[in-house]
Amino acid sequence: MTSDKKSLTLGAILYDSFELLDLYGPLEMFGNLKSELKLITVAENVGPVPSFQGPQTMAEFDYQNCPQLDLILLPGGFGTIQELDNQAILSFLKERVPSAQVTMSVCSGSWILAKAGLLDGRRATSNKVYFKMATQQSDQVDWVSEARWVEDGPVFTSSGVSAGIDMSLAVIASLYGEKKAMDIANYTEYVWNKNPAEDPFNKYLNMLVPE
Amino acid sequence: MTSDKKSLTLGAILYDSFELLDLYGPLEMFGNLKSELKLITVAENVGPVPSFQGPQTMAEFDYQNCPQLDLILLPGGFGTIQELDNQAILSFLKERVPSAQVTMSVCSGSWILAKAGLLDGRRATSNKVYFKMATQQSDQVDWVSEARWVEDGPVFTSSGVSAGIDMSLAVIASLYGEKKAMDIANYTEYVWNKNPAEDPFNKYLNMLVPE
Repeated sequence: MTSDKKSLTLGAILYDSFELLDLYGPLEMFGNLKSELKLITVAENVGPVPSFQGPQTMAEFDYQNCPQLDLILLPGGFGTIQELDNQAILSFLKERVPSAQVTMSVCSGSWILAKAGLLDGRRATSNKVYFKMATQQSDQVDWVSEARWVEDGPVFTSSGVSAGIDMSLAVIASLYGEKKAMDIANYTEYVWNKNPAEDPFNKYLNMLVPE
Repeated sequence: MTSDKKSLTLGAILYDSFELLDLYGPLEMFGNLKSELKLITVAENVGPVPSFQGPQTMAEFDYQNCPQLDLILLPGGFGTIQELDNQAILSFLKERVPSAQVTMSVCSGSWILAKAGLLDGRRATSNKVYFKMATQQSDQVDWVSEARWVEDGPVFTSSGVSAGIDMSLAVIASLYGEKKAMDIANYTEYVWNKNPAEDPFNKYLNMLVPE
């Protein structure tokens, strides 16, 4: 890591049964900004946090000892449902999101932001097949059903899982310039969808929501 | 996990400074086969293994205590260079790859397979910008420079980082049928490149190899 005073800290928020690619698609892209940005992992407790798919990621900081976060990344996954009633994560987000330069959610991560009231008055999106579950978290949000990701001021919300990669590259472009984002996409051999309005999966909207 | 006798075990091989998305793109896709397949993580030592980008993944098994593996996944990353001279991982792969139903590498993971002699007589690929580093590991391999991934019998090798996702969906299609793979791609909102010959990043071949 560089000692550059402009170096930013991105905090990835982990919780039990988070979705692997919601977290690691973005961390791959931001993690290749080695000299400009530092990645840290944060959870309610320090130690291994199991993903929905099984593999465990180490949380380095708990909510009490977490340093100042310039960027916040909140993944989704089936574990989201339990977190909607977890005051620890809701309080942490209410405390930290207002002072962050950028807050990002992937997939059902936006359900938690909405439940915390942090999307009220903003435009936001979420994954497609369970979209109605997002809208049920707050009626004060302008939910956008057809979007790869939505940018509203400092808050970026993406559609499901893989969409977090496209959103992350857009955030990198806004912070470090388009060339840097494109260089990372090419280096990681990723075909970047740069258009937030291009949503190939909108056709599956609410497909898995029970009647 | 189901107790289905046909349930397969996929072992993801971790080492210091592995590339995050090389590992987690495939684990996202295979990890959504919850009832058919179990993911485990394996490394030289049990415990947290740091990625090149920083975040640490827990290794559940060491090489001595690793159960029978039906599928093997070997990521790449800058840590690859150190592993090329690590007899522990080379011996483990020489012991386990011959009995695995499918072996997969992502990005520079194929350098390690080649160094272990496990690609000799086979067609294989690797990432684009450092391609020459792959070919230097063995001249007994038919290195294919233009390919998103290459399938040769039980061995699948992919191009850089994100290409591992396309390869994984192809392996899932071959094991569980095309519909299952497409369902996972759609669920994870991933635009699957199903054509192994379509390689949008071949134009960057050897771009980062020193003269």
